[in-house]
Amino acid sequence: MIKPDKRNWKARLHEIIYEADTPAGKLFDIILLIAILASIVLVMLESVKTIDSKYHDILNIGEWIITILFSVEYIARIVTVKKPIKYITSFYGVIDLLSTIPKYVSILFAGSHALVALRALRLLRIFRILKLARYLGASNNLVSALKASRAKIFVFLFAVLIMSIIFGTIMYMVEGEENGFTNIPKSVYWCIVTLTTVGFGDIAPQTPLGQLIATFIMILGYGIIAVPTGIVSAEYTHQSKPKPVSENDLVNLNTQACPSCSSEKHKDNAQFCYNCGHKLNHG
Amino acid sequence: MIKPDKRNWKARLHEIIYEADTPAGKLFDIILLIAILASIVLVMLESVKTIDSKYHDILNIGEWIITILFSVEYIARIVTVKKPIKYITSFYGVIDLLSTIPKYVSILFAGSHALVALRALRLLRIFRILKLARYLGASNNLVSALKASRAKIFVFLFAVLIMSIIFGTIMYMVEGEENGFTNIPKSVYWCIVTLTTVGFGDIAPQTPLGQLIATFIMILGYGIIAVPTGIVSAEYTHQSKPKPVSENDLVNLNTQACPSCSSEKHKDNAQFCYNCGHKLNHG
Amino acid sequence: MIKPDKRNWKARLHEIIYEADTPAGKLFDIILLIAILASIVLVMLESVKTIDSKYHDILNIGEWIITILFSVEYIARIVTVKKPIKYITSFYGVIDLLSTIPKYVSILFAGSHALVALRALRLLRIFRILKLARYLGASNNLVSALKASRAKIFVFLFAVLIMSIIFGTIMYMVEGEENGFTNIPKSVYWCIVTLTTVGFGDIAPQTPLGQLIATFIMILGYGIIAVPTGIVSAEYTHQSKPKPVSENDLVNLNTQACPSCSSEKHKDNAQFCYNCGHKLNHG
Amino acid sequence: MIKPDKRNWKARLHEIIYEADTPAGKLFDIILLIAILASIVLVMLESVKTIDSKYHDILNIGEWIITILFSVEYIARIVTVKKPIKYITSFYGVIDLLSTIPKYVSILFAGSHALVALRALRLLRIFRILKLARYLGASNNLVSALKASRAKIFVFLFAVLIMSIIFGTIMYMVEGEENGFTNIPKSVYWCIVTLTTVGFGDIAPQTPLGQLIATFIMILGYGIIAVPTGIVSAEYTHQSKPKPVSENDLVNLNTQACPSCSSEKHKDNAQFCYNCGHKLNHG
Repeated sequence: MIKPDKRNWKARLHEIIYEADTPAGKLFDIILLIAILASIVLVMLESVKTIDSKYHDILNIGEWIITILFSVEYIARIVTVKKPIKYITSFYGVIDLLSTIPKYVSILFAGSHALVALRALRLLRIFRILKLARYLGASNNLVSALKASRAKIFVFLFAVLIMSIIFGTIMYMVEGEENGFTNIPKSVYWCIVTLTTVGFGDIAPQTPLGQLIATFIMILGYGIIAVPTGIVSAEYTHQSKPKPVSENDLVNLNTQACPSCSSEKHKDNAQFCYNCGHKLNHG
Repeated sequence: MIKPDKRNWKARLHEIIYEADTPAGKLFDIILLIAILASIVLVMLESVKTIDSKYHDILNIGEWIITILFSVEYIARIVTVKKPIKYITSFYGVIDLLSTIPKYVSILFAGSHALVALRALRLLRIFRILKLARYLGASNNLVSALKASRAKIFVFLFAVLIMSIIFGTIMYMVEGEENGFTNIPKSVYWCIVTLTTVGFGDIAPQTPLGQLIATFIMILGYGIIAVPTGIVSAEYTHQSKPKPVSENDLVNLNTQACPSCSSEKHKDNAQFCYNCGHKLNHG
Repeated sequence: MIKPDKRNWKARLHEIIYEADTPAGKLFDIILLIAILASIVLVMLESVKTIDSKYHDILNIGEWIITILFSVEYIARIVTVKKPIKYITSFYGVIDLLSTIPKYVSILFAGSHALVALRALRLLRIFRILKLARYLGASNNLVSALKASRAKIFVFLFAVLIMSIIFGTIMYMVEGEENGFTNIPKSVYWCIVTLTTVGFGDIAPQTPLGQLIATFIMILGYGIIAVPTGIVSAEYTHQSKPKPVSENDLVNLNTQACPSCSSEKHKDNAQFCYNCGHKLNHG
Repeated sequence: MIKPDKRNWKARLHEIIYEADTPAGKLFDIILLIAILASIVLVMLESVKTIDSKYHDILNIGEWIITILFSVEYIARIVTVKKPIKYITSFYGVIDLLSTIPKYVSILFAGSHALVALRALRLLRIFRILKLARYLGASNNLVSALKASRAKIFVFLFAVLIMSIIFGTIMYMVEGEENGFTNIPKSVYWCIVTLTTVGFGDIAPQTPLGQLIATFIMILGYGIIAVPTGIVSAEYTHQSKPKPVSENDLVNLNTQACPSCSSEKHKDNAQFCYNCGHKLNHG
C-alpha cells in the first residue's frame, strides 16, 4: 500500500478514531476502553454512601476528566465524519451524547434527587465496549447459533410462562395469603423463581400439599432445563462443524470506516466505499 | 382453487372461526389472542387486593365484556359445526365452557368465598392459546425430541425420586426435628429442593454431619443435572439433522378444519375430509 | 415351546417369583410393586406426628399385612431356589431380610427410641423396585453413557472439591466468624452450596470483598456447570447413534432365572443354564 | 531395558521422587498423597473451635509429623536435582516451601493472630495433588475441550457481566435502599446471584415492579445457561470423535524426569534429555 505524503488532519483523525489498523488507532481504542471502565467503576463507587462521603472530591474530579475526554471524542467524531447528522442520529451517537451530558446537567440542577437517575445514564457508556468488540471474532459463531435457535427458545419460554401462570394460580389457592402467596402475580413470580431453580426462599410453601406441588414444579423445572440447552447445543454442534471454503469466500475485510458515510467492513483492496462510492483512505 | 360465489353464512363463519387461511380467519385469531391475554391480566389484577379495591368496577366491566365475547364465540362454534356434541365434549369445548361460566355463576352466589376458585377457572382460557399454536412450526421439532426422550427422562426422574427418599430419610435421622427436618416427607421435600439446585433455604442442615451429607447430595445433583440435558441434547442433535426428503413427503397441509367433524391437518388438495368423508370448504 | 403337563409346585413357584414371561409371573411382579410402594408410603406417614397419633392403629395393621406378605415371599424365594445360601447372601437377599425383620423386632423392644432407625430400614424395600427394572430397556443406554463418562466426571468432581477447599478457606479469612463463616469446613460447605448454584442463603457473604469473591465463585460455577453436561451429552450423542447390527447380535434374551443358581439373561432357546449347566424350566 | 548394577544413591532417590515407573516411585507417590490429604484434614479441623480446644495437642503433633515429612521431601528434592535453583524458583518449588514453613514460623510468633492466615498457607499443599495428576489421562480431553472453548466462554461471561451491571443499576433505581439494594455494586452482586440461578435470598425484590424485572432476569438466566453448556458440549462432541492415528503418533511417553533439568514427558526409548541433553536414568 502507498502512503500518501500529504493528508489533511481530518482524514488522519478519522483514521485514528474509526479504524484500528494503525498503531495510533489501536492506542486510541485502548485509551477509550480504559476510560469506559474507569467511568463505570466511578459511577458504582459514587452509589456506595461510605465511599462517596469520604472521597467525594476525588470521584468528582475523576468524573469531570472522563466527561471532558468523552466530550472531546464526541466533537472529534462529528467533525471528522462527512455526514455528521447520520452519526448523531445513529445508535452509538445517541449513546455517546446521553452518557456525556449528565455531568453538565448536574451543575445546573445541583443537589436535586433526579441526579441519581442521571448518574446511571453514564453507565450507558458500557454499550460503547460492544463497539470495540470488532476484535472478538469468537463471538460470531455464538451469536449466529443463538439467532438460529431464537424462535425455538421463544416458544420454550412462552411455554414456561404459561406453566408458571397455571401453577402459580394453583399455589395461590393452596397456600393462600397467610403463607406469603398474597396474590396471583406474586404466586407466578414465586413459580418462576422455582422453575428456574433460583429459589430465593423469601416465599416458601408451608402446607404439606403446597410442598408436594412445589416438589412437582421443581422436578418439572429440572426436566425442562434440558430443553434450551439441548436446542443451543444441537444448533452449535452443527454450526461449529468445519465448512468447506470456496475461493470466493477468501476475502479479507479490514477495520477501516468510510470517511463519508461511516460504513464498515471494506475489503482490503477496496479503493472506494461500497456504499457511497467515496474514496477510502489507505494507510 | 375455485372460489364458489354462493355460500351460506354458516360455512363462511366456520371458515373464519376454524381456519386461518383467509384474512378474516387471521383477524379472528388475533382478536381471540388479545381477548385471552386481557382476560388473564384481569384475573391476575383482581387477586391483588390494593388494585381490586381501587379499580373494582373497571375490572368488573372488563371481565363482563370478555365473558360476553367468549359466550358469543362459544355459541358460534356450536352453531357452525355439524356435530356440536363432538365439539362440546372435546377438550377445547369443555375448556371454553368452564372458562366462560364463572362470571354468570358469580351473580347467583355473589359474595361467597368459593368465587376465588371460580375466578381462577377463567385462567383455563390460557389453554386456548395452545389452539392458536398452529402457527408455530418451530415447536414441532421440539415436541418430537421431547416425546422421543420421554421414556428416558421418566426413568431418570424415577431414579431422582428414589434417591430423594433414601437421602431424605438419612437426613431426617441425622438432623432430626429440632433442625427443621420434622418428618420424612418434609426431609424428602428438602432433598428434592437441594438435588434440583433450587435451594430455598427455609430448611437447611445445622449439624456438621448433616452439612457433609448435604454437600454430597449437592455434588450428586450437580453431576446428574447433566443427564436429562444430555438425553434431550443428543435426541435433538439427531432430530435437527437435515433428512433426505422423498417425493411422497412433499405434501402441504393447511389449517382448515372439517365442517362436520372438526378434524384438522387436511392436505391442500383434499376435496373430502379424511376422517368422516364430508365435503371440505375450499376458500 | 412345549408346555409340560406335570411340574412340581416348586418349579411352578420358581417361575412365578423369578420370571415375568407368564401371566402369573407378571401378576406377582405387579402385586410386589404395589406392596413396596404401599410400604414406603406407610413408613413416611408414620414419621408425620399428626398423622401417626390419629391413625396409628390403621398404619400399624397395614404395616403388619405388608410385613407378613414380604415374609411369605422371602421364605418362598428360599424354598424354590436350589442354592438358598447364594440367594440369602446376595445383595437382594440381604435387602429382603433387613427390610422385613424391623416389624418383628419392634414387638420385642416396644417403645424404645432405636425403633425410629429400625423403621427406616423398611425403606430399603425401595431397592427391590430396581429388581423389577428389568422391564425398562430405556435405561440401558443411559447407564452405559454414564459408565463411559464415569472417569471424566470423577476428575471433574475432584477439581470442584479442590476449588471449594481453596475458595472456602479464602472466604473464611475474608468474612470471618462474625458473618457465619465459623470455620473452614463450614466455609467449604458454603462454597459447594454456591458453586452448585443451590444457594440456600443460610450463610451469605456480608462484606463487599466477600461478595466480590462470591460473584467470582458464582460465575465460575456457571461456567463449569457446562462441563459434566458436555461430557454426558457428547458420550450420549455417540452412544445413541444407530449401530449396524450383525447377525450374531440378534439373540433374544428372556426374563427367566436358573432354578439352581439364579443367574439371569438366558437366551430364548437355551435348554441349560449358561452358568451352572442346570436344566432350565421352559414355560 | 538394561538395569545397571551400580548407581549412586542420588540417582536412585531421584528416580523414586520424580518418577512413577518403579514400585518404590509409586509407593512414594501414594505416601505423598496420603500426607497431603491428612494435612488438609488437619488444617480444616484446627479451624473448628470445639475440636481444636479438645484435641489441640493431637492435631499439633500430627501437623509436626507432616511438616517434618514435607521438609525432608523438600530437601531431598533439592539435593537430587542437578539444578536446584531451577526447582526452588519453579511453581511447585515455591508451593512446597510456602506450605512447609508456616509451622516453623508459628514457634517464633506463638499466639499472634496472623497465624490463622499462615495456617491456611499449608492448604497450598493441595496443588501438589495436581502434580500427581499425571496418572489421570482421562482429564486430557476435558482440558483441551475447555481450552478450545476458552475464548467463547470468556466472551459469554463478559456479556453476562455487562447485563448484570445494566440490570443491577435498574434494580437499584427501582427497589432502592429500603429494600436491601443499598448501592449499585450490591445490586450487581444480587443480579449475578440471580442470573446464575444461585439465589441466596439474602436480598430479594419487594416491589411488584422489582419482582417483574427479577422475573425477566431469571428467565433470561434460564435461557442463557444453555450457552456455555452448548459451547463445551459441541467442542467436546467434536473432540471425543475417534481420530485417525498416523504411525508417527504412536510414541510412548514415560513418567521419568531428567535428573539435570527436571523436564518431563520423555519418549520411552530416549537415552538423553530432549531439553538439556543430559543422560537419562533407565530403570
